[in-house]
Amino acid sequence: MRIDILTLFPGICEGAFSESMMRRAREKGLAGLHAHNLRDWARDKHRITDDAPYGGGQGMVMKPEPVFEAVESLRRPGTRVVLMSPAGRRLDQAIARAYARESHLILICGHYEGVDQRVAEHLIDDEISIGDYVLTNGAIAAAVFTDAIVRLIPGVLGDDASALEDSFADGVLEFPHYTRPLEYRGWRVPEILLSGNHAAIAAWRREQALERTRKNRPDLLENNGSS
Amino acid sequence: MRIDILTLFPGICEGAFSESMMRRAREKGLAGLHAHNLRDWARDKHRITDDAPYGGGQGMVMKPEPVFEAVESLRRPGTRVVLMSPAGRRLDQAIARAYARESHLILICGHYEGVDQRVAEHLIDDEISIGDYVLTNGAIAAAVFTDAIVRLIPGVLGDDASALEDSFADGVLEFPHYTRPLEYRGWRVPEILLSGNHAAIAAWRREQALERTRKNRPDLLENNGSS
Repeated sequence: MRIDILTLFPGICEGAFSESMMRRAREKGLAGLHAHNLRDWARDKHRITDDAPYGGGQGMVMKPEPVFEAVESLRRPGTRVVLMSPAGRRLDQAIARAYARESHLILICGHYEGVDQRVAEHLIDDEISIGDYVLTNGAIAAAVFTDAIVRLIPGVLGDDASALEDSFADGVLEFPHYTRPLEYRGWRVPEILLSGNHAAIAAWRREQALERTRKNRPDLLENNGSS
Repeated sequence: MRIDILTLFPGICEGAFSESMMRRAREKGLAGLHAHNLRDWARDKHRITDDAPYGGGQGMVMKPEPVFEAVESLRRPGTRVVLMSPAGRRLDQAIARAYARESHLILICGHYEGVDQRVAEHLIDDEISIGDYVLTNGAIAAAVFTDAIVRLIPGVLGDDASALEDSFADGVLEFPHYTRPLEYRGWRVPEILLSGNHAAIAAWRREQALERTRKNRPDLLENNGSS
């Protein structure tokens, strides 16, 4: 898979791409991750990518021309073009799984007040939000989306099971984890985890996962299977 | 405000802190943003911070001792300690606003399969998830949470109005934006925005915001005022 990111701040994405899982996915040749500076597609000598909004109001709006020209220079048959935007569909694990099957993505990162609406109407295939909060910069959202996708590409994680057992993969939060020391400041690891009884441990973990979900995120249980 | 981040990959956060709004907040002295390497609090000579899970299973779990010792060395009266975790409360704009009033935060970033549960039970004040998807690394989640908070600190954005008008600030998505050129590839900016009639423009923007919310995120209108 290849992911091209169009942003005014490629350094934000490069910081995330150069460490940990995404670095390894790059090194193994499983994910080509490229952060481009949108200014490279601006045509005027000051490489301006934003302008004042029509109709008045605070802030600046990203101009359509550099975005269209950047996408058109990178797009090929089968590419999906996504605008990272708080007005988009809200990212969840099912969306991440669907995108992990694509071969080429272009992610457009908004900045300032937003991106000229003609980009959303005439250039993109999808509009994705990473959550119901406002970020200054779509580059951080693109790094989140990329991490969520790339870890699901077969071969990227050390063992494919890890990707399956995590929170949300089966609609509930993940069970609690414990490691050494067995006792720390008087707090002991639950005895069941020392029992060696794999069936009992699996049942306890399932119950703990459900209890945690009921307590922290009852909405996940109500919506189960509906989305 | 000061935010200390505990992670195995401080470079991920530094990439985000060194550009755009967060860089300016740092330079103005409005936000002290510090990414620390948790390994600096590991005591053995290999600086090990993870170990195998009790009860068996895939992956590694972050050990409690370096996390406890790091938090205790950085904590002071009034500090709030937050674990970035997919099992936490889901971040929204109201949570970001509440955190923007704090004076000192410590954000603990999970990695591998998760963090020893004794951290969640005995060390932290809150557990926050940035969304219903799995990330490899809590450092990206911490960068998201930090961006959402820091931009709300008075004086950080160029004008305080920008922080108010964005998506979610009033429970609906933001209206669409347009900038020059007036016509691009045959697509014209809506005439109303050229009218100079500020009341009519405000009414149109409100209607567009509601229409977009009804289309992309009807759940926001159903839940309005309930959370």
